Amino acid sequence: MSAYDDLMAFQKETEALGQVMGRLGWDQETMMPRGAAPQRAEEMAALEGVLHARRTDPRIGDWLSEAHAPDEVGKAQLRLITRSYERASKVPADLAQRLAKLTSASQGIWAEARADEDVAAFLPTLKEVVALKREEGAALAAGGDVYDAMLQDYEPGASAESLSAMFAALRPRLTTLRDEVMASEQPADLDFDFDEGKQMKLTRKLAKAFGYDMSHGRVDKAVHPFSSGSGQDVRITTRTSPRDPFNCLYSTVHEVGHACYEQGISKEYLLTPLGNGVSMGVHESQSRIYENQLGRSKPFCGWLYGQMRDTFGDFGVADEDAFYRTVNKLRQGFIRTEADEVQYNLHVLLRFDLERALISGDLAVDDLEAAWNDRFASDFDFEVDKPSNGVLQDVHWSVGLFGYFATYSLGNVYAGCLNEAMRADLPNLDEALAQGDPTSATEWLNEALQRHGGLREPRATIAHACSGVDPSEERLLMYLEDKFSKF
Amino acid sequence: MSAYDDLMAFQKETEALGQVMGRLGWDQETMMPRGAAPQRAEEMAALEGVLHARRTDPRIGDWLSEAHAPDEVGKAQLRLITRSYERASKVPADLAQRLAKLTSASQGIWAEARADEDVAAFLPTLKEVVALKREEGAALAAGGDVYDAMLQDYEPGASAESLSAMFAALRPRLTTLRDEVMASEQPADLDFDFDEGKQMKLTRKLAKAFGYDMSHGRVDKAVHPFSSGSGQDVRITTRTSPRDPFNCLYSTVHEVGHACYEQGISKEYLLTPLGNGVSMGVHESQSRIYENQLGRSKPFCGWLYGQMRDTFGDFGVADEDAFYRTVNKLRQGFIRTEADEVQYNLHVLLRFDLERALISGDLAVDDLEAAWNDRFASDFDFEVDKPSNGVLQDVHWSVGLFGYFATYSLGNVYAGCLNEAMRADLPNLDEALAQGDPTSATEWLNEALQRHGGLREPRATIAHACSGVDPSEERLLMYLEDKFSKF
Repeated sequence: MSAYDDLMAFQKETEALGQVMGRLGWDQETMMPRGAAPQRAEEMAALEGVLHARRTDPRIGDWLSEAHAPDEVGKAQLRLITRSYERASKVPADLAQRLAKLTSASQGIWAEARADEDVAAFLPTLKEVVALKREEGAALAAGGDVYDAMLQDYEPGASAESLSAMFAALRPRLTTLRDEVMASEQPADLDFDFDEGKQMKLTRKLAKAFGYDMSHGRVDKAVHPFSSGSGQDVRITTRTSPRDPFNCLYSTVHEVGHACYEQGISKEYLLTPLGNGVSMGVHESQSRIYENQLGRSKPFCGWLYGQMRDTFGDFGVADEDAFYRTVNKLRQGFIRTEADEVQYNLHVLLRFDLERALISGDLAVDDLEAAWNDRFASDFDFEVDKPSNGVLQDVHWSVGLFGYFATYSLGNVYAGCLNEAMRADLPNLDEALAQGDPTSATEWLNEALQRHGGLREPRATIAHACSGVDPSEERLLMYLEDKFSKF
Repeated sequence: MSAYDDLMAFQKETEALGQVMGRLGWDQETMMPRGAAPQRAEEMAALEGVLHARRTDPRIGDWLSEAHAPDEVGKAQLRLITRSYERASKVPADLAQRLAKLTSASQGIWAEARADEDVAAFLPTLKEVVALKREEGAALAAGGDVYDAMLQDYEPGASAESLSAMFAALRPRLTTLRDEVMASEQPADLDFDFDEGKQMKLTRKLAKAFGYDMSHGRVDKAVHPFSSGSGQDVRITTRTSPRDPFNCLYSTVHEVGHACYEQGISKEYLLTPLGNGVSMGVHESQSRIYENQLGRSKPFCGWLYGQMRDTFGDFGVADEDAFYRTVNKLRQGFIRTEADEVQYNLHVLLRFDLERALISGDLAVDDLEAAWNDRFASDFDFEVDKPSNGVLQDVHWSVGLFGYFATYSLGNVYAGCLNEAMRADLPNLDEALAQGDPTSATEWLNEALQRHGGLREPRATIAHACSGVDPSEERLLMYLEDKFSKF
């Protein structure tokens, strides 16, 4: 066995154990009996210990120094292993352990504080999280920019500077567009009880229509929709609410986008570093293009309207056009995850600016709520009414995910680029979507992007899929301005 | 930290990882999408590698040589860790790996051979399994008896000699009893379609009645009923068949017996060696006493008859007495898992004798089918009609479980002892069972046996629960002769 083969064999086991960890997370959110939580925490901590020891195993360094990649794919494998090894080796074991313990406990404290609308109860913990994440970031940055170092965990190659430029381009045009659309008359809200069993039946039909492979996945209900796993076992969850069928249906299509990316990666990369989605931003490009550019398009909404009439009977929406406007309705809202296509990135931008200030030290944790509320009022023109609609709404900061939020917007921007390239190649796509058939689009995305997994860096992954054109937010803006100017 | 503390901390992580392995097995049988099987095999192999490395970690030897147990519980912990470490250290890593690989593949080969009724397709693999298990047994025996060494994996303290004596006492009286009962008129078979959804509803009610804690467990359907997990997360499966509701209901009560044992172990022993059922035989004593001495008792059957009438309406059984006789009906059958209380142990005995002969070399694998069929005809007075009803019916040998079968009968014998001791303490038990309430019995079993986990050796565990009386098959025989002589 060569050093390369030894390394890849070792890595395969680590990837397999990483999949086990993901499965435990899925089980916890879907199947686990409530009383098992303390034991599950011990199980996950033990497995995390095993994974951490493997990721920092000094033999990896030895193998890397001797390994010769047999081809371009092998070079990409070594690049990802090197990155992961260097990352793991930079963080002292003691710090990694303290962070794991703290963020495991702090999620519960955040959830309780949110339920109690009690920001003060969460702030001492958040201070500790920020302090430890800054310590970790400094270790990772090794003299460079701390926040940039954090970004690499989610979006290799991204920088605060490039993201700031992206948001600077997005903000004025999105705000203008939002104000224009909101000034015109908006469709009424749905007023109908949608049977939850029928929602799940239709949601499974949608999942299959978008190419989700049920022989390598399954759909369950959970409090929060998510996708979990890579390779041959990629599971999704959704949720139902009797008054809001779109929550179920579009959560499903969103998660199917994530899941199809993982399911669609070349079988040759199974249980290797290349066998996972390349970054959070690229992942989100898949979930968002499935959900929005395809799922919320006018032709697809026309087909979905018929499906919903067949499933639920007359639910009080007159025709396809009214249905399309209802699906894409803009509304004043506090919650990022419920935001429409136009306003979503404004929610993200608020978080991006605030978390950078927290990490740089320009904003004290004690001042965070006031800063959030001021910024929200100025960006959205109405006031936050309670912490669960404001600074306590997202789990991310409680578990130390600083640098993550921007990848949501990056995903939207990438989806805009991919949509333009895809539609140039597929002139008849709208006719197929009007028949409820996104197959040509999902096949295009698989061929152009999904099957390559981690072969190229994130931006290069998008550029490769777009005939070499470097991604830009201009594509997303043009798509949104075109779509919503017609309302 | 003392050596004892270090050892126990290490052991706790190993126990937690062992629970993760169990959860993967549960997922595979209940939730996993079909196409995920190859990846799951890699995941389980990687985790098995981690567990094997931990179980043979030389630090365990160092800690054990320095550790001082703080109390009797600590001494029991060290005793179990020592046994596991010595066992793992005796088997060369290479042999352990070859066995793991072989038995992982051979289960599929057995399943296919069984489906095809093709014994010859399975024999080459079985030969390899027998050869490797003999090699492993010789390593474990270190000069002693190979089969006795194998028994220790399932029933520490058991020997072929003591089991032979047990079976020698059981065989003539069970055969006589069987012949007597079968000579009298047997009740008709059920002839009704039992709604499977209603079966599951009633089965959950039964599970709760027997004390199964749903906040630390769950009931799902699977091809084969099983119980999985220890401590705070103990899940069971059952199955439904429209023509045979007893399959569902009594599988559930059986698995609830296993599960309540695990759920009922003292919380102090969570994720320690004492926190698991002490042996297969003692485990089976719990499943069998729940299923038979409690669940198939006349008063409980009376209550269950009412429940089934309420659930399914008139299903063609006239009264409680006829129902009791139907539940306990003896019939000619090929299949061990479907056998009645009287004949079950005769099925086990056949396997015990044949596998001892296989391991000693007195019986060649090529002659196994003929030996099975001859023995079956002589023990049961009718002929095996096809391999799936004969030598290919059980999975055990294909996965190398030699020494396991006898623990089923040992469990029945132990259940007989426990039943006598329990009834002496609970004179009003039958009245409670007639109300569908086995609580006093399950509490007695928890107090006398379940909560102690692995504190005492298996026979001592039973003796402790029975006021110090050493277990004997006489109790089971008297119970069976009393019960079935009244038919």
